[in-house]
Amino acid sequence: MIHRLDHVGVVVRQVADRLPFYRDLLGLPLEGIEEVPGEKVKIAVLGRGAGRVELLEPTEEDSPVGRFLQQRGEGIHHLCFLVDSLEETCRLLSGAGYRLVGGVRVGSEGTRIAFLHPKDTGGVLVELRQAPGIMP
Amino acid sequence: MIHRLDHVGVVVRQVADRLPFYRDLLGLPLEGIEEVPGEKVKIAVLGRGAGRVELLEPTEEDSPVGRFLQQRGEGIHHLCFLVDSLEETCRLLSGAGYRLVGGVRVGSEGTRIAFLHPKDTGGVLVELRQAPGIMP
Repeated sequence: MIHRLDHVGVVVRQVADRLPFYRDLLGLPLEGIEEVPGEKVKIAVLGRGAGRVELLEPTEEDSPVGRFLQQRGEGIHHLCFLVDSLEETCRLLSGAGYRLVGGVRVGSEGTRIAFLHPKDTGGVLVELRQAPGIMP
Repeated sequence: MIHRLDHVGVVVRQVADRLPFYRDLLGLPLEGIEEVPGEKVKIAVLGRGAGRVELLEPTEEDSPVGRFLQQRGEGIHHLCFLVDSLEETCRLLSGAGYRLVGGVRVGSEGTRIAFLHPKDTGGVLVELRQAPGIMP
Protein backbone atom coordinates (compact mmCIF):
# COMPACT_ATOMS: atom_id res chain seq x y z
CA MET A 1 0.00 0.00 0.00
CA ILE A 2 1.12 3.51 -0.77
CA HIS A 3 0.76 5.74 2.25
CA ARG A 4 -2.00 8.29 1.80
CA LEU A 5 -4.13 10.94 3.47
CA ASP A 6 -6.85 9.21 5.48
CA HIS A 7 -8.86 12.24 6.65
CA VAL A 8 -8.79 15.90 7.61
CA GLY A 9 -10.04 16.80 11.10
CA VAL A 10 -12.02 20.06 11.30
CA VAL A 11 -13.04 21.46 14.68
CA VAL A 12 -16.63 22.78 14.81
CA ARG A 13 -18.72 24.24 17.60
CA GLN A 14 -21.65 22.00 16.69
CA VAL A 15 -21.74 19.25 14.08
CA ALA A 16 -25.43 19.96 13.42
CA ASP A 17 -24.66 23.56 12.41
CA ARG A 18 -21.99 22.61 9.84
CA LEU A 19 -23.60 19.54 8.27
CA PRO A 20 -25.76 21.64 5.92
CA PHE A 21 -22.57 23.09 4.41
CA TYR A 22 -20.51 19.92 3.98
CA ARG A 23 -23.32 17.45 3.24
CA ASP A 24 -26.05 19.46 1.51
CA LEU A 25 -24.12 22.22 -0.26
CA LEU A 26 -20.69 20.64 -0.93
CA GLY A 27 -22.36 17.25 -1.54
CA LEU A 28 -20.16 15.01 0.65
CA PRO A 29 -21.98 11.85 1.80
CA LEU A 30 -22.44 11.61 5.58
CA GLU A 31 -21.12 8.17 6.50
CA GLY A 32 -21.83 8.26 10.22
CA ILE A 33 -21.62 10.08 13.53
CA GLU A 34 -19.82 8.52 16.49
CA GLU A 35 -18.64 9.54 19.94
CA VAL A 36 -15.10 8.78 21.09
CA PRO A 37 -15.37 9.07 24.90
CA GLY A 38 -11.59 8.82 25.39
CA GLU A 39 -11.06 11.98 23.34
CA LYS A 40 -14.28 13.67 24.57
CA VAL A 41 -15.38 14.33 21.03
CA LYS A 42 -18.30 13.68 18.70
CA ILE A 43 -17.19 12.94 15.12
CA ALA A 44 -19.18 13.24 11.89
CA VAL A 45 -17.49 11.39 9.01
CA LEU A 46 -18.10 12.85 5.52
CA GLY A 47 -16.96 11.08 2.36
CA ARG A 48 -15.54 7.60 1.72
CA GLY A 49 -12.04 6.21 1.40
CA ALA A 50 -9.08 8.57 1.08
CA GLY A 51 -9.53 12.20 2.04
CA ARG A 52 -12.59 12.02 4.26
CA VAL A 53 -13.58 15.07 6.31
CA GLU A 54 -14.15 14.49 10.02
CA LEU A 55 -16.06 17.24 11.84
CA LEU A 56 -14.95 17.28 15.50
CA GLU A 57 -17.32 18.66 18.13
CA PRO A 58 -16.03 18.65 21.72
CA THR A 59 -18.36 16.95 24.21
CA GLU A 60 -16.49 18.65 27.09
CA GLU A 61 -14.66 21.96 27.25
CA ASP A 62 -11.76 20.37 29.11
CA SER A 63 -10.46 18.27 26.22
CA PRO A 64 -7.92 18.72 23.40
CA VAL A 65 -10.61 19.68 20.89
CA GLY A 66 -12.45 21.82 23.47
CA ARG A 67 -9.28 23.78 24.23
CA PHE A 68 -8.51 24.22 20.51
CA LEU A 69 -12.01 25.67 20.03
CA GLN A 70 -11.63 28.08 22.95
CA GLN A 71 -8.18 29.27 21.90
CA ARG A 72 -8.43 29.36 18.12
CA GLY A 73 -12.09 29.00 17.19
CA GLU A 74 -13.44 26.70 14.50
CA GLY A 75 -11.04 25.55 11.79
CA ILE A 76 -8.81 22.79 10.43
CA HIS A 77 -7.30 20.79 13.28
CA HIS A 78 -5.16 17.98 11.86
CA LEU A 79 -4.23 15.80 8.89
CA CYS A 80 -4.32 12.02 9.34
CA PHE A 81 -2.19 9.69 7.21
CA LEU A 82 -2.69 5.95 6.87
CA VAL A 83 0.55 3.95 7.19
CA ASP A 84 1.44 0.27 6.70
CA SER A 85 3.16 -0.06 10.05
CA LEU A 86 2.62 2.55 12.74
CA GLU A 87 5.60 1.25 14.74
CA GLU A 88 7.98 1.39 11.77
CA THR A 89 6.88 4.89 10.74
CA CYS A 90 7.13 6.15 14.34
CA ARG A 91 10.61 4.65 14.62
CA LEU A 92 11.72 6.34 11.38
CA LEU A 93 10.29 9.68 12.50
CA SER A 94 11.75 9.51 16.02
CA GLY A 95 15.14 8.70 14.52
CA ALA A 96 14.88 11.84 12.40
CA GLY A 97 14.06 13.99 15.45
CA TYR A 98 10.27 14.24 15.14
CA ARG A 99 8.50 14.13 18.51
CA LEU A 100 5.37 12.07 19.19
CA VAL A 101 2.70 13.78 21.30
CA GLY A 102 1.41 11.37 23.95
CA GLY A 103 2.57 8.10 22.36
CA VAL A 104 0.54 5.46 20.52
CA ARG A 105 -3.16 5.30 21.54
CA VAL A 106 -6.56 4.04 20.35
CA GLY A 107 -8.61 6.36 18.14
CA SER A 108 -11.92 6.15 16.27
CA GLU A 109 -13.08 2.68 15.15
CA GLY A 110 -10.56 1.15 17.56
CA THR A 111 -7.54 1.78 15.31
CA ARG A 112 -4.09 2.57 16.70
CA ILE A 113 -2.94 6.16 16.16
CA ALA A 114 -0.16 8.58 17.09
CA PHE A 115 0.29 12.35 16.78
CA LEU A 116 3.39 14.31 15.79
CA HIS A 117 4.29 17.67 17.33
CA PRO A 118 3.31 20.52 14.96
CA LYS A 119 6.50 22.40 15.79
CA ASP A 120 8.46 19.63 14.05
CA THR A 121 6.27 19.32 10.95
CA GLY A 122 5.89 22.93 9.80
CA GLY A 123 2.84 23.93 11.82
CA VAL A 124 0.71 20.89 10.92
CA LEU A 125 -0.69 18.57 13.60
CA VAL A 126 -0.14 15.18 11.92
CA GLU A 127 -1.97 12.03 13.00
CA LEU A 128 -0.65 8.65 11.87
CA ARG A 129 -3.08 5.75 11.68
CA GLN A 130 -2.33 2.06 11.36
CA ALA A 131 -3.91 0.77 8.14
CA PRO A 132 -6.57 -1.85 8.99
CA GLY A 133 -5.91 -5.55 8.53
CA ILE A 134 -2.12 -5.31 8.76
CA MET A 135 -0.23 -6.38 11.87
CA PRO A 136 2.28 -3.82 13.16
CA MET B 1 -19.66 11.54 -9.34
CA ILE B 2 -19.82 11.97 -5.60
CA HIS B 3 -18.17 15.21 -4.58
CA ARG B 4 -14.96 14.61 -2.66
CA LEU B 5 -11.85 16.18 -1.19
CA ASP B 6 -9.37 16.85 -3.99
CA HIS B 7 -6.39 18.08 -1.99
CA VAL B 8 -5.17 19.89 1.11
CA GLY B 9 -3.01 22.98 0.59
CA VAL B 10 -0.16 23.39 3.11
CA VAL B 11 1.93 26.57 3.14
CA VAL B 12 5.67 25.98 3.56
CA ARG B 13 8.62 28.30 3.57
CA GLN B 14 10.54 26.08 1.17
CA VAL B 15 9.26 22.96 -0.58
CA ALA B 16 12.77 21.45 -0.51
CA ASP B 17 12.87 21.61 3.30
CA ARG B 18 9.54 19.80 3.80
CA LEU B 19 9.85 17.11 1.09
CA PRO B 20 11.94 14.81 3.31
CA PHE B 21 9.06 14.71 5.81
CA TYR B 22 6.14 14.13 3.44
CA ARG B 23 7.89 12.03 0.79
CA ASP B 24 10.63 10.14 2.61
CA LEU B 25 9.25 9.73 6.13
CA LEU B 26 5.45 9.71 5.61
CA GLY B 27 5.91 7.84 2.31
CA LEU B 28 3.67 9.93 0.03
CA PRO B 29 4.72 9.69 -3.65
CA LEU B 30 5.88 13.01 -5.15
CA GLU B 31 3.87 13.39 -8.35
CA GLY B 32 5.35 16.66 -9.58
CA ILE B 33 6.39 20.23 -8.87
CA GLU B 34 4.90 23.11 -10.85
CA GLU B 35 4.83 26.89 -10.73
CA VAL B 36 1.56 28.81 -11.05
CA PRO B 37 2.71 32.32 -12.01
CA GLY B 38 -0.80 33.81 -11.60
CA GLU B 39 -0.81 32.83 -7.92
CA LYS B 40 2.95 33.46 -7.43
CA VAL B 41 3.40 30.02 -5.95
CA LYS B 42 5.45 26.85 -6.44
CA ILE B 43 3.42 23.69 -5.77
CA ALA B 44 4.67 20.19 -4.91
CA VAL B 45 1.94 17.56 -5.36
CA LEU B 46 2.18 14.52 -3.07
CA GLY B 47 -0.09 11.49 -3.46
CA ARG B 48 -2.54 10.46 -6.17
CA GLY B 49 -6.29 10.82 -6.60
CA ALA B 50 -8.42 11.96 -3.69
CA GLY B 51 -6.75 13.61 -0.73
CA ARG B 52 -3.48 14.74 -2.26
CA VAL B 53 -1.23 17.09 -0.28
CA GLU B 54 -0.06 20.23 -2.09
CA LEU B 55 2.90 22.04 -0.53
CA LEU B 56 2.66 25.74 -1.40
CA GLU B 57 5.85 27.84 -1.45
CA PRO B 58 5.41 31.53 -2.30
CA THR B 59 7.62 32.75 -5.14
CA GLU B 60 6.99 36.39 -4.07
CA GLU B 61 6.27 37.86 -0.65
CA ASP B 62 3.50 40.02 -2.10
CA SER B 63 1.07 37.20 -2.87
CA PRO B 64 -1.78 35.44 -1.04
CA VAL B 65 0.47 32.57 0.07
CA GLY B 66 3.35 34.95 0.86
CA ARG B 67 1.12 37.05 3.11
CA PHE B 68 -0.26 33.94 4.84
CA LEU B 69 3.31 32.84 5.59
CA GLN B 70 4.29 36.26 6.99
CA GLN B 71 1.17 36.56 9.15
CA ARG B 72 0.63 33.01 10.37
CA GLY B 73 3.75 31.01 9.54
CA GLU B 74 3.77 27.58 7.97
CA GLY B 75 0.61 25.49 8.25
CA ILE B 76 -2.56 24.18 6.61
CA HIS B 77 -3.93 26.78 4.19
CA HIS B 78 -7.04 25.39 2.48
CA LEU B 79 -9.18 22.36 1.60
CA CYS B 80 -10.09 21.84 -2.06
CA PHE B 81 -13.22 19.91 -3.08
CA LEU B 82 -13.90 18.53 -6.56
CA VAL B 83 -17.43 19.27 -7.81
CA ASP B 84 -19.42 18.18 -10.88
CA SER B 85 -20.42 21.69 -11.84
CA LEU B 86 -18.58 24.67 -10.40
CA GLU B 87 -21.32 27.06 -11.57
CA GLU B 88 -24.13 25.02 -10.01
CA THR B 89 -22.31 24.61 -6.68
CA CYS B 90 -21.40 28.32 -6.57
CA ARG B 91 -25.04 29.22 -7.32
CA LEU B 92 -26.27 26.96 -4.49
CA LEU B 93 -23.74 28.40 -2.06
CA SER B 94 -24.39 32.04 -3.01
CA GLY B 95 -28.10 31.44 -2.57
CA ALA B 96 -27.41 30.14 0.94
CA GLY B 97 -25.37 33.27 1.81
CA TYR B 98 -21.83 31.95 1.32
CA ARG B 99 -19.48 34.52 -0.22
CA LEU B 100 -17.02 33.76 -3.01
CA VAL B 101 -13.57 35.37 -2.67
CA GLY B 102 -12.50 36.85 -5.99
CA GLY B 103 -14.86 34.91 -8.27
CA VAL B 104 -14.12 31.98 -10.58
CA ARG B 105 -10.52 31.81 -11.84
CA VAL B 106 -7.94 29.43 -13.36
CA GLY B 107 -5.83 27.35 -10.95
CA SER B 108 -3.20 24.62 -11.30
CA GLU B 109 -3.39 22.38 -14.39
CA GLY B 110 -5.65 24.98 -16.03
CA THR B 111 -8.77 23.94 -14.09
CA ARG B 112 -11.47 26.39 -13.05
CA ILE B 113 -11.61 27.12 -9.32
CA ALA B 114 -13.31 29.37 -6.78
CA PHE B 115 -12.72 30.14 -3.08
CA LEU B 116 -15.25 30.60 -0.29
CA HIS B 117 -14.79 33.09 2.53
CA PRO B 118 -13.55 31.31 5.69
CA LYS B 119 -15.82 33.49 7.86
CA ASP B 120 -18.82 31.76 6.27
CA THR B 121 -17.53 28.17 6.47
CA GLY B 122 -16.37 27.88 10.09
CA GLY B 123 -12.78 29.10 9.73
CA VAL B 124 -11.88 26.92 6.74
CA LEU B 125 -10.68 28.43 3.45
CA VAL B 126 -12.52 26.21 0.96
CA GLU B 127 -11.50 25.90 -2.70
CA LEU B 128 -13.95 24.42 -5.19
CA ARG B 129 -12.57 22.83 -8.33
CA GLN B 130 -14.40 21.84 -11.49
CA ALA B 131 -13.99 18.09 -12.02
CA PRO B 132 -12.09 17.49 -15.27
CA GLY B 133 -13.87 16.33 -18.40
CA ILE B 134 -17.27 17.67 -17.46
CA MET B 135 -18.73 20.80 -19.00
CA PRO B 136 -20.04 23.35 -16.49
